Amino acid sequence: MRIVLASASPARLATLRAAGIEPEVIVSGVDEERIASTDAANLAGALAQLKCRAVAEQIDDDALVIGCDSVLAFEGDIFGKPGGHVEAAARWRRMRGRSGVLHTGHCVRRGGEEFLETASTIVHFAAITDAEIDAYVATGEPLHVAGAFTIDGLGGAFVTGIEGDHHNVVGLSLPVLRELVGELGIAWTDLWNRTS
Amino acid sequence: MRIVLASASPARLATLRAAGIEPEVIVSGVDEERIASTDAANLAGALAQLKCRAVAEQIDDDALVIGCDSVLAFEGDIFGKPGGHVEAAARWRRMRGRSGVLHTGHCVRRGGEEFLETASTIVHFAAITDAEIDAYVATGEPLHVAGAFTIDGLGGAFVTGIEGDHHNVVGLSLPVLRELVGELGIAWTDLWNRTS
Repeated sequence: MRIVLASASPARLATLRAAGIEPEVIVSGVDEERIASTDAANLAGALAQLKCRAVAEQIDDDALVIGCDSVLAFEGDIFGKPGGHVEAAARWRRMRGRSGVLHTGHCVRRGGEEFLETASTIVHFAAITDAEIDAYVATGEPLHVAGAFTIDGLGGAFVTGIEGDHHNVVGLSLPVLRELVGELGIAWTDLWNRTS
Repeated sequence: MRIVLASASPARLATLRAAGIEPEVIVSGVDEERIASTDAANLAGALAQLKCRAVAEQIDDDALVIGCDSVLAFEGDIFGKPGGHVEAAARWRRMRGRSGVLHTGHCVRRGGEEFLETASTIVHFAAITDAEIDAYVATGEPLHVAGAFTIDGLGGAFVTGIEGDHHNVVGLSLPVLRELVGELGIAWTDLWNRTS
């Protein structure tokens, strides 16, 4: 079966690979600014669906297409990728020692059937120092991700704990994806197409 | 600064590397059977300390030595690595749809100073099918790890969520290590010795 990830995120690709799945990557080219919502979970779901459909329209109907999108909800704000170093550092000075909710929308399509689920994980940020914020932002790593933190990278030490699925925070919840492909009638272990 | 990981675990090494730290690996050769305890957290802490001290004795005093050990507590039992395919499958038939607690002991030493902390993370296992258990165990992956599950590998889809630090489940909690090296007077970001 052809498996297509409709996302440019290296973290999502790495998550699937570590779980035994080597997908093709086709980037949707969807303009994320097209959708606005004041509800973080709705926004993540709508963007995931948009990406999934945009790629599914381009390819054969038998392929499994997976679209995802992530946003961080923090004290009433919705945080996507930060605009630059200054914004990333400013966010961390607000977030440190506090908690946010990372929402990831997941949309799967195959043979014209589509299933959608958004999962939410509470993220507790460490009370890191100004020097740590500066050193972290200087690496550039937090600039490329929703919420400006990389739990799977240099930021791993700056998250004290989560409540929910870790892979959802990285950008693609494997247990959610397992359930969604199950609804399409696909056994999860049949997706294993690479050896680790 | 010389950074030494006193563990043979590829998952611990990968965790440090992803977080920007490239350690030397020196395996302690400690016989884990030497220590018995009915308390899972105490057991993980004692084994981490034993490994850390065994390696620290062999090398110069200025090196930072990190020792870790993980066990899964499940309904009154303590699960280390399973004995083989049959035991791994039997455990999963008990664990699916239920929860356990993954305890990881962390011990750091430098210049004769030592700090120890054991962290505990609740792990919720998915209600996977017999076919999924058989396919998973057949890969061999769960045979090599405490608790017989790999949240960072093929088993990622079989954990629905956690409460606590993800990296603690993998085998080395980065936020705990950050605090422990802080007690030794070392700034976390000074350990970053590799570019991602």
